[in-house]
Amino acid sequence: MDNQTAAYTPHEFKGRTFHDARAAFADGSDTPVAYLERCLDVVAVREPAVKAFASMNEGAARAAAEASTKRWKAGQPLSAIDGMPVGIKDLLETKDMPTQMGCTAFDGNFPKNDNAAVWALRQAGAVIFGKTITAELGGNHPGPTTNPFDPARTPGGSSSGSAAAVGSAMMPAAIGTQVGGSIIRPAAFCGNFALKPSQGGIHRGERQATSMSTHGPHAACIDDMWQVAIEIASRTGGDPGYPGLMGPMTPPHPIRPERLIVLQTEGWARLDTGTISAFEQLMDNLQSAGVTLLRRGDHPWIESFEKSIANATEVCGMITAWENRWFQRNLVDRCPEGVSTRTKATLTKAESMTLHDYHALMLARETARICHATLAPLAEAVITLACPGPAPLWPGDIPGKPMASRPTGDAVFNYPSSMAGAPVVTVPVMAVGGMPVGLQIMGQRNEDARITAMASWIHGNVDPVIVKSL
Amino acid sequence: MDNQTAAYTPHEFKGRTFHDARAAFADGSDTPVAYLERCLDVVAVREPAVKAFASMNEGAARAAAEASTKRWKAGQPLSAIDGMPVGIKDLLETKDMPTQMGCTAFDGNFPKNDNAAVWALRQAGAVIFGKTITAELGGNHPGPTTNPFDPARTPGGSSSGSAAAVGSAMMPAAIGTQVGGSIIRPAAFCGNFALKPSQGGIHRGERQATSMSTHGPHAACIDDMWQVAIEIASRTGGDPGYPGLMGPMTPPHPIRPERLIVLQTEGWARLDTGTISAFEQLMDNLQSAGVTLLRRGDHPWIESFEKSIANATEVCGMITAWENRWFQRNLVDRCPEGVSTRTKATLTKAESMTLHDYHALMLARETARICHATLAPLAEAVITLACPGPAPLWPGDIPGKPMASRPTGDAVFNYPSSMAGAPVVTVPVMAVGGMPVGLQIMGQRNEDARITAMASWIHGNVDPVIVKSL
Repeated sequence: MDNQTAAYTPHEFKGRTFHDARAAFADGSDTPVAYLERCLDVVAVREPAVKAFASMNEGAARAAAEASTKRWKAGQPLSAIDGMPVGIKDLLETKDMPTQMGCTAFDGNFPKNDNAAVWALRQAGAVIFGKTITAELGGNHPGPTTNPFDPARTPGGSSSGSAAAVGSAMMPAAIGTQVGGSIIRPAAFCGNFALKPSQGGIHRGERQATSMSTHGPHAACIDDMWQVAIEIASRTGGDPGYPGLMGPMTPPHPIRPERLIVLQTEGWARLDTGTISAFEQLMDNLQSAGVTLLRRGDHPWIESFEKSIANATEVCGMITAWENRWFQRNLVDRCPEGVSTRTKATLTKAESMTLHDYHALMLARETARICHATLAPLAEAVITLACPGPAPLWPGDIPGKPMASRPTGDAVFNYPSSMAGAPVVTVPVMAVGGMPVGLQIMGQRNEDARITAMASWIHGNVDPVIVKSL
Repeated sequence: MDNQTAAYTPHEFKGRTFHDARAAFADGSDTPVAYLERCLDVVAVREPAVKAFASMNEGAARAAAEASTKRWKAGQPLSAIDGMPVGIKDLLETKDMPTQMGCTAFDGNFPKNDNAAVWALRQAGAVIFGKTITAELGGNHPGPTTNPFDPARTPGGSSSGSAAAVGSAMMPAAIGTQVGGSIIRPAAFCGNFALKPSQGGIHRGERQATSMSTHGPHAACIDDMWQVAIEIASRTGGDPGYPGLMGPMTPPHPIRPERLIVLQTEGWARLDTGTISAFEQLMDNLQSAGVTLLRRGDHPWIESFEKSIANATEVCGMITAWENRWFQRNLVDRCPEGVSTRTKATLTKAESMTLHDYHALMLARETARICHATLAPLAEAVITLACPGPAPLWPGDIPGKPMASRPTGDAVFNYPSSMAGAPVVTVPVMAVGGMPVGLQIMGQRNEDARITAMASWIHGNVDPVIVKSL
């Protein structure tokens, strides 16, 4: 473990929040214009090392902040996030910035459309702040972004820039997307709160190509996280054919869970001792706060769900590889030099699959969904680590050596909820070796508001854990 | 009724078939190259009046036919449709032809990708023949295509060019798409067989934006129709997360249904007497052939399904309008002059909807799906008209007058299956006033092969009906 890492400690670290700025906007002692400038000041300081942005349109952001300032002055904000600077992962189309997807083949791509979520944010008065770096095409070939708490470490991916921009207090919230672990893992590595909604919960706009992807917010506090999610979903609804995320138009009141199921997942075997120690201390703290914990041995249905997700990495990876293969084949045919070797290797793997393979994977996923649903009467939610320890060091590929298979870290703790189509919130309540490590809480489908309420209670009522070294 | 219409009669009319050409390819007495040239000869004669094509790449088609000819000579065709010329609706991307979607805003649009279905057709050795005219963006603002049996009449839409190209024997098969009635209605107006698969049955590639759209083949015979569908689906599977159309790799053997439910739908009240007479004669012929028919009064579950689809036009139209609104809003903002007034009116209607309205519509759709599922034990399938009588005359919008609301005809008989996500086959077994009128047979979800088998039996064993004038 590198001992020079920044000493991140949960509950002492304060990111940039927005909900607590509204009162000052309303009484005129602060303005969205000034708020944006404070964000831009941090960008000026942190961005050279963090490298969170693929592009930025400061002119458009300032104009939006000025319009918001006028609305607040007139006492007529459009929503609770009017004036909030929000970053947009560079997979989503924005009409005033290019959409380059972390992929050379899309250099300069500028479709001049707004993704449905971006449209909703603008309708709510949010200030679209910049496009945040994504791993190539939302996969695992990383961009230049570094972890805000240690520039030698990955911020996680594929929502690398969104996670790092929020973690470094450049902005209060940013939109990420997740297929495997691309919202929750980077958020957990960067000390953010984040919501990976129920499958179909937030309208993906033009990004409907795969059956397991979702849009979701990163934020520095849970109130802002919920507010961004509900402001989008109340305007766009869910994906076509889905009801979409619903719940209160203000952050859900904290709820203390009676019983939680502690999940190990296939990731447990890969943990370092410091992270295991931090997690078990946190479990003790949860019990001290009055929560009953159930584990694998306590009920056959828990055992059965654990078994159904035992190969979640393989199942999720191959489902998504298959679903992406026409897009990627077209792209590689059109622009062979514009796609990384890492992504091409995934395509090769996908093209070796058969339809029968895909059907077998779908059955595995459906089985996991059924096993997950059986847990509902046992406990209010499932908890586990949001990432397998602190963000790993990643110095870049070494020429002549095999490429790193997981340069943005391992999504092993994230695949189960993606596979189950279940909502998850990550909560920054642990530090290991000075780096953030998240706890995740996973609900049944469409229980996004309920797990947000429980996450809020955990954050407010359970002592965080600091493990100094591994 | 215009008495100079071409005297179309089912069972005498012979379109261009492909399955019966394979033996000659195999023994060398015919070749895909010669087959293609025969198609092109018909195009030269018919296209000036029919106007089925948005673009064509004869060079690429000839090269593909030559490659196919070599494979047949070597005794190694790639599939049962190797060498088959197939038209592609101009909503689907093709790497060797533009994709202009019948919309001025997309003039010259040329993304150089292959839609998943197009990719599958090429893998199977099919000859991609041309892009067929679509009503604007798959809606109801028509292109220039005319009905092959009467140039004063619409071919139907939005798969106008695919229907007309097959109906005029320019090609044996073409791909259409349907959200409301865009495969089945034009096929029925043009004397084709066509399959609107179960929702999710054939991979839509980049076209995943709405929850009720499907890709499906038009063909001049049911064997070719099935073969095209299964060759695509066996290579691509269904939409992401769907099992996709499955069944035999050769056309299903005809099956005589014991019992069929005759559906009226909200379209019944709009029928002319000639069409009612033709349909009831056909029902008599079905009974003479030994099929028991059940109707609305025969069982409360039939009554209940009829009620659940009583507003199918409104429900389907508004669901799709809502789901298309970001795409259309982006487009109109970007290129206001490039979108028709008709399509803009739909967008205006969509933008007056709320998320609650959409949720109410989803509930209506889900109710119809449940009511449809209850019919399974009563009968093997549901039958009704595939179109509300022969294709209507349409002389174009008259300047200064309100625009025609249904220039490509009325999809009223098609919305129920779209709403139910159920597979439908249209069978050309009626003529009214010298124009084709189709019968449709609708199965439970994923029963695509079963209804194809029943459609095949009906076509081979039930006397067709000719009503000379209205």
